[in-house]
Amino acid sequence: MTKRALISVSNKDGILEFAKELVALDYEILSTGGTKKMLQDNNVPVTAVDEVTKFPEILDGRVKTLNPMIHGGLLGKFDDPSHQAQMNEHGIEPIEIVCVNLYPFVETISKPDVTWDDAIENIDIGGPTMLRSAAKNHQYVTVIVDSNDYAKVLEELKANGSTTIETRKALAAKVFRHTAAYDSYISNYLTEEEFPENLTMTYELKQTLRYGENPHQKAAFYQKRLSSDFSLAYATQLHGKELSYNNIQDGNAALQIVKEFDKPAAVAVKHMNPCGVGTGATIEEAFDKAYEADPTSIFGGIIALNREVDAATAEKLGGIFLEIIIAPSFTDEALEILTKKKNIRLLTINFAQEKKDQFKVVSVEGGLLVQEEDTFGFADADINVVTDRQPTEEELEALKLGWAVVKHVKSNAIVVNDAQMTLGVGAGQMNRVGAAKIALEQAGEKAKGAVLASDAFFPMSDTVEAAAAAGITAIIQPGGSVKDQDSIDKANEFGIAMVFTGVRHFKH
Amino acid sequence: MTKRALISVSNKDGILEFAKELVALDYEILSTGGTKKMLQDNNVPVTAVDEVTKFPEILDGRVKTLNPMIHGGLLGKFDDPSHQAQMNEHGIEPIEIVCVNLYPFVETISKPDVTWDDAIENIDIGGPTMLRSAAKNHQYVTVIVDSNDYAKVLEELKANGSTTIETRKALAAKVFRHTAAYDSYISNYLTEEEFPENLTMTYELKQTLRYGENPHQKAAFYQKRLSSDFSLAYATQLHGKELSYNNIQDGNAALQIVKEFDKPAAVAVKHMNPCGVGTGATIEEAFDKAYEADPTSIFGGIIALNREVDAATAEKLGGIFLEIIIAPSFTDEALEILTKKKNIRLLTINFAQEKKDQFKVVSVEGGLLVQEEDTFGFADADINVVTDRQPTEEELEALKLGWAVVKHVKSNAIVVNDAQMTLGVGAGQMNRVGAAKIALEQAGEKAKGAVLASDAFFPMSDTVEAAAAAGITAIIQPGGSVKDQDSIDKANEFGIAMVFTGVRHFKH
Repeated sequence: MTKRALISVSNKDGILEFAKELVALDYEILSTGGTKKMLQDNNVPVTAVDEVTKFPEILDGRVKTLNPMIHGGLLGKFDDPSHQAQMNEHGIEPIEIVCVNLYPFVETISKPDVTWDDAIENIDIGGPTMLRSAAKNHQYVTVIVDSNDYAKVLEELKANGSTTIETRKALAAKVFRHTAAYDSYISNYLTEEEFPENLTMTYELKQTLRYGENPHQKAAFYQKRLSSDFSLAYATQLHGKELSYNNIQDGNAALQIVKEFDKPAAVAVKHMNPCGVGTGATIEEAFDKAYEADPTSIFGGIIALNREVDAATAEKLGGIFLEIIIAPSFTDEALEILTKKKNIRLLTINFAQEKKDQFKVVSVEGGLLVQEEDTFGFADADINVVTDRQPTEEELEALKLGWAVVKHVKSNAIVVNDAQMTLGVGAGQMNRVGAAKIALEQAGEKAKGAVLASDAFFPMSDTVEAAAAAGITAIIQPGGSVKDQDSIDKANEFGIAMVFTGVRHFKH
Repeated sequence: MTKRALISVSNKDGILEFAKELVALDYEILSTGGTKKMLQDNNVPVTAVDEVTKFPEILDGRVKTLNPMIHGGLLGKFDDPSHQAQMNEHGIEPIEIVCVNLYPFVETISKPDVTWDDAIENIDIGGPTMLRSAAKNHQYVTVIVDSNDYAKVLEELKANGSTTIETRKALAAKVFRHTAAYDSYISNYLTEEEFPENLTMTYELKQTLRYGENPHQKAAFYQKRLSSDFSLAYATQLHGKELSYNNIQDGNAALQIVKEFDKPAAVAVKHMNPCGVGTGATIEEAFDKAYEADPTSIFGGIIALNREVDAATAEKLGGIFLEIIIAPSFTDEALEILTKKKNIRLLTINFAQEKKDQFKVVSVEGGLLVQEEDTFGFADADINVVTDRQPTEEELEALKLGWAVVKHVKSNAIVVNDAQMTLGVGAGQMNRVGAAKIALEQAGEKAKGAVLASDAFFPMSDTVEAAAAAGITAIIQPGGSVKDQDSIDKANEFGIAMVFTGVRHFKH
C-alpha cells in the first residue's frame, strides 16, 4: 500500500526538494492551501486534503484538517487490530509522515503596526493539532516541524524504508517544545495580568556554554525573542573566544550600569560588582577614571563603554588584561590595535535601544522569583536635604553618580566617589558599616572631600562617623531608619551634607 | 435559536451544577464520554457529540471532537455573512460556550509507577484543540478551562444574556496559559537533551509579594510542580507575616547551606550570605555556635536549623531579632515560646527530601542563563595535600566545614573557621585578598589555630601571607593558579598545611 505524507507549511524552505524525494520514495503527498499550490506548480503530484476528508475547506481556511479522516489517520495505532478495523470501516488510511509548521504568530506580533485581528488570525489551530496528534502517536508516525530535520528523515527512509523509533521520539519531543513555545507567546500576548496563575516562559538556545559558574557545572545561554537589542544575547562579537557564563553575568552587569549615564562613561566589573566607574568629557577620559578607580581589581575584569572606542582609548585598554570590552562601536584603528590581543573578546551592542524586559526571574529551589527591574533613578527620587548644610553643586553631581552606581552593587553596598568616578566600592557585606569600611579604606586619602552613597538606610550613626573620620563631605541614602535622627545629628556635627532619597536599592 | 454549550471535562468539580444552570438558561448541552454519562445519570439533558458530528467516537476515544461539525461551530464568526452561509450549507451550528479541561498529564507522570504508555495516552489532543479554537474565536465564544470561572460566567449570562468581551478575552488568555503550560510539561517529559533549541518553563503562582527586593518593585513567587518538598515553595508556615521577596532569597540560601550537614547545624543568613554557621552535638549547641560566629550580623537575619527546635533552643532564638526560623519541626514548648513573638516567621520544611531541581535559571537583559547547580562536595573532591605538613584530624574536620560553607558565599569568598563554626566570612569582593582581610579581621584573635577556605585559587601568595600573620594553621582551596608554587612555598615557610581540591566554587 502506498504510504502517505501530509505536508502543510507556512515556512516553505526546502519543502519542494523534500516532497520530491518523498514522491521518489513512493509516498502520496497530501496537502492543502498554499503548500498544495506551490507543489503542484512545481509538478509534484498532490492529493488535496479535501479529497481525503470529503469535506471542503471552510471559514477562510480556519477549518481544513480538523477532520476524523485526517486525525484518525494520525492517531490510529498501526498495529492495533481494533484500531485497524475501525479505520477500515470508515475508510481512514494511515498517514505515516506529517510535515507541518505554523502560522507565524511571533513574526506577526513583532511587526510595529500589527493589528489585533492580524494577531488573532495568526493563531494556528489546525497546524498544532496535526503536530500534536502525530507526536502523540510517534510510535508509528514521523512528525517534522523543523526544516532542518528533512535530511535526517530522508536518509533513514532511504536506508531502512522507515525512520527509527529514536528519531520519531526525538521529533515528537521537538514538536511539543514547539507547540509549548507557540502557546507561550500567544498567552503572553493575550495576558494582561502581571502575575497570572500560570507563568510559562519560552527562550531560544543561543549557545551551550563550555561550563557554568564553575567547570563542573553544565550551562547554556538562551535568548528571549521580542526583547531589546541592548542585550548580550543580541551583541555582535568582533573578536575573541566564546563568552563564558561568568562573562555573560559580568557583561550584563556592566551594561546595566553604563546605561545609567548619558555622558561618556566606562564601567569595569568583577564578580558582578563594579570595581571602577569613570566618566569624562571623552571616552578616553572616562576609561582613565574607571581604571584609576581600582587599578588592581580591573585585572581580568570586563569593561563596558558607552561611546565608540577610538585608537587612543584602545591603546590603553590593550595595555591591561581584560576579558571583554563592550561598546557601541570601535574605530578601525581601535580594532586593529585590540584584535592583536588573542585573549580579549570585543563586542558591539546597540546602545540606542531602550531596555524592554520589565521583569526578571531567578530560581530558588522548587520555585521562581519574578520581579520588576529596579529602574528607579536619581531623577525619580524625592531628594530631601536633611542636614543643616546643603550639598554644593559639585557634591550634588557626585551624589548623583554615587546613587546611580550603588544601585548596581550587591547589598549591603556603599560607594565612595567624586563627581567623575568611584573611589571605593564596598559590596556584599552582611552589615552596613562593614561595607562602608571597605569602601572608605579603598578610597584612602581620596575620600577627603568625596561623597558616600548607601543602598539602604543607616541603622545607626556609625557609618556617618566612619565617613566623617575619612573626610567624606556629603552622603546620599534612602533614610527611613528609626534612628535617622542619630545619623543626621552626627552629620551636622561634622558639617556633612546628607540627602535622603526615600528609595532603597537592595540588590543581591 | 437554542444556544449550545459543549462540555467535556476530566476534572468534574462543579460541572453538574454548572450544566444544570446552563440548561435552565435554555442552553443545549453537547457532551461526550464520561462527562455525558455523568450528566445523563443526573438527569441533565445532553446531546451526544456524535449526533452532531454524525461520526462515531473511534480509536478508544482518541478521535471524538476532531470534526468540522464541532470546530466549524467553534471557529465561525457569528457575524460574518460568508461564514454563516458556509455553516448553514454544511448544517454547522455555532457553539457559544466551551467548557473543557484536559487529561491529567502532570498528575499521571507524577505517579511513581507511571508507564510510558500511560503518559502518552494522557496527552490530550481533542481537548486542547477545542480550547484553542474557542479561545481564538473569543470575539464570539466563551471558553472555560478552570472550574473557578463557572460562577462568573453564569452571573454574566443571567444578568445580560451573554458574557462581556472583556471576560471572554480574559478566559481566552487563560486557555493559552493553560495549553502552554500543558505542552511545556509534555515537552519536558519527552525531551532528553539538557539544552534543547527551545526551552519552555512553566510555574504556578504561589503568591504575589508585597514587593520585590525594594518597595518600588513588583514581585511574585511561583512554584514549580514535580519539584522537591525541600523548598520554601512547599514549606508550611506556622506563624508570622507573609514571606517577603528577600526572605525567600535568604531562606533559600540558608536551606542550601544547612543541607550540607548531617550533624546538627544552624545557619544564619544576611543578604544571601551566611553570617554564622554552627554545628554541634545538639541543635542548641549548633545555634550557640552560629550566634557566636557573628552576634552583630545575625540581627534581623534568618536562620535555618536541620533538627527539631526544642524549648531550650527556642528560648535563645526568641532572645534575638530574627526574621525567620526554618526547621524540620518545632516541639510544642518551642512553638509556645516563639509564637509569642509577633514579628517572627516560623516555617517547617521536609528535610528528609532530596533536592530535585538540577538546573537553575537567572535572567540577564534579553536572555536567560541556565546552569546545573553546584552540588560538588568535599567527599567528591580529590583532596591533595600540597605542603610539607599534613593537616591534623581536627584541621581536616575544620577544612571540611570551611569548604562546605565557602561554596555558598558570594565570590570572591573566604571563610575562616574551626571544626565547629565559622569565625569570619569575607564575601562578594572584587579581589581575593580583600575577601581574606575581611574574614580574618572578623575572626580576630580566634583566627589563631583556625583554618581558611577559599572558593577559588590564590593568584599570588598574599592571601597565605595574610592568613599566616593572623595565625591560620591550615588552608583549603582549589589550586590551579600559575603561581601556586609561590603560595605553597609561603605556606611551608609558616608551617601551614594546605590542601587543593581541584574544584572551584564561584557563586554570584
